[in-house]
Amino acid sequence: MTERERSKGKGGDPLEPPKRMEFPTSLGTSDADHIRLLGLDLADDLMGKVGFGELAFWLATQRRPEPGEVRVFEAVLAALADHGFTPTAIVTRLTYLSAPDSIQGALAAGLLGTGSRFLGVTEDTGRFLHDVLAGVQLPTDDAGWDALALQTVTAQRAAGRFVPGLGHHVHKDGDPRTPRLMQIAREEGLFGPHLALFAAIGRVHPQVLGKTLPLNGAGVCGAALADLGLPLPLLRGFALLARTAGLIGQLAEELRHPVANEIFLSVDLHNRSVAPDPWPPDPEPPAPEA
Amino acid sequence: MTERERSKGKGGDPLEPPKRMEFPTSLGTSDADHIRLLGLDLADDLMGKVGFGELAFWLATQRRPEPGEVRVFEAVLAALADHGFTPTAIVTRLTYLSAPDSIQGALAAGLLGTGSRFLGVTEDTGRFLHDVLAGVQLPTDDAGWDALALQTVTAQRAAGRFVPGLGHHVHKDGDPRTPRLMQIAREEGLFGPHLALFAAIGRVHPQVLGKTLPLNGAGVCGAALADLGLPLPLLRGFALLARTAGLIGQLAEELRHPVANEIFLSVDLHNRSVAPDPWPPDPEPPAPEA
Amino acid sequence: MTERERSKGKGGDPLEPPKRMEFPTSLGTSDADHIRLLGLDLADDLMGKVGFGELAFWLATQRRPEPGEVRVFEAVLAALADHGFTPTAIVTRLTYLSAPDSIQGALAAGLLGTGSRFLGVTEDTGRFLHDVLAGVQLPTDDAGWDALALQTVTAQRAAGRFVPGLGHHVHKDGDPRTPRLMQIAREEGLFGPHLALFAAIGRVHPQVLGKTLPLNGAGVCGAALADLGLPLPLLRGFALLARTAGLIGQLAEELRHPVANEIFLSVDLHNRSVAPDPWPPDPEPPAPEA
Amino acid sequence: MTERERSKGKGGDPLEPPKRMEFPTSLGTSDADHIRLLGLDLADDLMGKVGFGELAFWLATQRRPEPGEVRVFEAVLAALADHGFTPTAIVTRLTYLSAPDSIQGALAAGLLGTGSRFLGVTEDTGRFLHDVLAGVQLPTDDAGWDALALQTVTAQRAAGRFVPGLGHHVHKDGDPRTPRLMQIAREEGLFGPHLALFAAIGRVHPQVLGKTLPLNGAGVCGAALADLGLPLPLLRGFALLARTAGLIGQLAEELRHPVANEIFLSVDLHNRSVAPDPWPPDPEPPAPEA
Repeated sequence: MTERERSKGKGGDPLEPPKRMEFPTSLGTSDADHIRLLGLDLADDLMGKVGFGELAFWLATQRRPEPGEVRVFEAVLAALADHGFTPTAIVTRLTYLSAPDSIQGALAAGLLGTGSRFLGVTEDTGRFLHDVLAGVQLPTDDAGWDALALQTVTAQRAAGRFVPGLGHHVHKDGDPRTPRLMQIAREEGLFGPHLALFAAIGRVHPQVLGKTLPLNGAGVCGAALADLGLPLPLLRGFALLARTAGLIGQLAEELRHPVANEIFLSVDLHNRSVAPDPWPPDPEPPAPEA
Repeated sequence: MTERERSKGKGGDPLEPPKRMEFPTSLGTSDADHIRLLGLDLADDLMGKVGFGELAFWLATQRRPEPGEVRVFEAVLAALADHGFTPTAIVTRLTYLSAPDSIQGALAAGLLGTGSRFLGVTEDTGRFLHDVLAGVQLPTDDAGWDALALQTVTAQRAAGRFVPGLGHHVHKDGDPRTPRLMQIAREEGLFGPHLALFAAIGRVHPQVLGKTLPLNGAGVCGAALADLGLPLPLLRGFALLARTAGLIGQLAEELRHPVANEIFLSVDLHNRSVAPDPWPPDPEPPAPEA
Repeated sequence: MTERERSKGKGGDPLEPPKRMEFPTSLGTSDADHIRLLGLDLADDLMGKVGFGELAFWLATQRRPEPGEVRVFEAVLAALADHGFTPTAIVTRLTYLSAPDSIQGALAAGLLGTGSRFLGVTEDTGRFLHDVLAGVQLPTDDAGWDALALQTVTAQRAAGRFVPGLGHHVHKDGDPRTPRLMQIAREEGLFGPHLALFAAIGRVHPQVLGKTLPLNGAGVCGAALADLGLPLPLLRGFALLARTAGLIGQLAEELRHPVANEIFLSVDLHNRSVAPDPWPPDPEPPAPEA
Repeated sequence: MTERERSKGKGGDPLEPPKRMEFPTSLGTSDADHIRLLGLDLADDLMGKVGFGELAFWLATQRRPEPGEVRVFEAVLAALADHGFTPTAIVTRLTYLSAPDSIQGALAAGLLGTGSRFLGVTEDTGRFLHDVLAGVQLPTDDAGWDALALQTVTAQRAAGRFVPGLGHHVHKDGDPRTPRLMQIAREEGLFGPHLALFAAIGRVHPQVLGKTLPLNGAGVCGAALADLGLPLPLLRGFALLARTAGLIGQLAEELRHPVANEIFLSVDLHNRSVAPDPWPPDPEPPAPEA
């Protein structure tokens, strides 16, 4: 890139001195004697005085959460930390088998599966509820919430879309995390509009869908995180944080009671070699240029 | 999961013996004396006889490409391999600085930036052109392509959407890769409908948008890959393959002429500590439950 | 792989029925009505009753930590969560810039930099102290610890090796996290042999090295985690857990006050094109076969 | 970091103007009308004229390889591209199952398993042979190579270390890739000292080890890459490049003939919940401070 391009690229006048490069942050900074984080002294103000869930909330919002907020937040993290032999857990164990020299690689590989299908429900539900609430006057009683929920579920069905957070392939008669998290939020006075709408969806959807589906745990976590005011684009990030703790647990178990090699062999020894299946099935040459 | 759940989950009758677990593949398999790949003997039929671009194409389609297809494919890979100090290149260099023990981590980190913004254009353009072509009778002359392109650009504009592959922040008067790739495709008789529509978009869009934008290199690569019949959901994968070679080049240069530490310091030494900026800005407690 | 190979690979008799495939775990399992984790009911026993740091410790050790252990552990996590514009933070921000559709990719990319150079000190120090302690009778007073430390530092210097955890490029006169974490461990009765040896190294090393270096924060965290009895091969994992929270904080700040594009441009706009520098510098053909 | 720190950190005089920030590169650069790569014009000089294997070699060494070098290099890439249901292939398929929105995540996750155990042999063998050769006068006949190999294997055994590249769990009587790659290297006049030493190790090791082990394919690839003069710290990188093509093949097959969900269920449905196994087994409180 030429100097001319450069100045055009930055929109500045090439004769002016460059503006001072500066990267502002409220997170960690340090000088020879102090480390600051979130405007406080790390050693004196934070270490020994702040829990880890509390700190994670604080880092994401740059405000210290109230104890009740921390309790709801940590209940969410507990709900999402580990679900046994999920694809992410298998991936972390297999990656450790294959590259035991890199713990960070094994954890990162597992986190990469935390996508739309298995943990994305948390974010999708939070966003969905938020979008519904953005355009309405908030109801003031259960009947009002039910009416809003009915309208919401009806609109989704009409559009051929699922309601995020509804349904579970194992907990068909109810996900035990859902009532528990709602109870905790109520105890802390943090049962806000996202949880209220989600609960109402649970009550009214059979009228529209003709069957009763459970409100799943990932969904209720999304509703609770949205009620806590956490940034919607990062709701998936909190699922990832919870899962990091879970994947460390998986690795710790793998170290002492390894199963990854047996998982690998159970796949590899059952491979069956088949003839190639060319794509596209009926290869046509592209139409020649006119 | 209980036995009952299990049988329900699999849809089988719990009294039947489990069906034999088997994982078919046309890719690599081996026994004591042979390694097979794509239905051939790896050592005898492939090693020393197949180029790497050719093999990558073959692995993705399970059919051996023609020499002309290989030439177009490798031209695409060359076009996408390296663009200098992109975010992905910086990420790979910084990760190597921080974890020199894990080359795989440095490459994987760089590839993770190959997302919607910087390299996704290839896939987006291929898919977009494919979707347009799926529903129409293919034109037989330039006037026909221009008419289809005009209709396409007009519809996108009316919907408030961009046309993928159009525009470039540096090559404002034309991306040199675009005419070159079209020329190569023509030379090989592989200038198919995706490239034809893309070229027509380049001709007609000023009538609709009121300004002339370049057809960018990532876009023309997507059009060419689609004309080669490569699987649309994997078009981004080929950009990743090309970029892997580029990132190895970045690492090789970093090993001999390191700049990552200076990049890191140029950011860190220009940090400015600012007061926390709490989120949400005006924290309201959630509306209490009705 | 043939059946014959398979049976040989597994070491079994091909006539025996295969042994039942089974993957034991004490982590998450579930049936239709319950989710179990660590032998307890997730909803009833854990959600709302366990902090997140406590849960992470529990998952890694399969035992519930004491409150004092949780406090030391969370002090360590606070110490390691965020250090501002480190390579890992820059990597996460740049990856998000480039692929905003994948939060998991941005976090994973950042974690991949958590390697030997920037965060590996925690693990290296814990292992180093552990190895020294493994072969000796534990001292019972400061003089004894000093003698052991002197012998340890002398041996490292004689072998031309550094003492992990000693030295810091910014906190040259002392890392403020070190005395603070030692104080917290003492308050909780958890100042064990790893911390004792580390502290003694801090006292005696000037006699051997001829200069006074600080005991750094990453090192003292490794010593404290080792005293907590956490698995040594996973000490780096706890640094990764802490850093996950920090990187979410970096992303949250990036979302509201973006700097990644300016970082990218500050590098890219200062590139300088130079002639290729072929490798090897003096290419010799390999010696022909004898 | 204060201004004072900053100047100390950079070693400069705080009164001097900062030196001009500049990042030299021989890789990609561009201006409005041109894209340069490796000192050439990307569109005119490279696209359509350079194969992908050739380009990857060139990017890593900044010199254009000879056709014979390309043929050996591409034979190595073919040998390493895909080995069927390896842990890396399973990981990529499971990650895609879990996060189908991120192809880059699925590929990156698979690459993260390309570590010391499964693909690191290539790098380890190349480095090992290089280190042996670094200190000796190169032999001029087979007897000389055998003597050097004998001395090398004997020294490794005496030190209790394995010889990298020796042994294979499936190809016990010989890895078919090894003689084939040696043949190709000979045909191209590129059978250099690394391959010569490796072949000699294959001949003489039974005298020392008392059993005959195969020279494995990953090892011979490392020897060949070292003979090509490719940078030793990046030998693993070429295995990663080959594997990227293989993993794209795995994803392409998964898209059309999915098995990942069945793999996941085959593990998850065979989980067995067991009681927690606390660590450390006999928790002792750390010895109190003296």
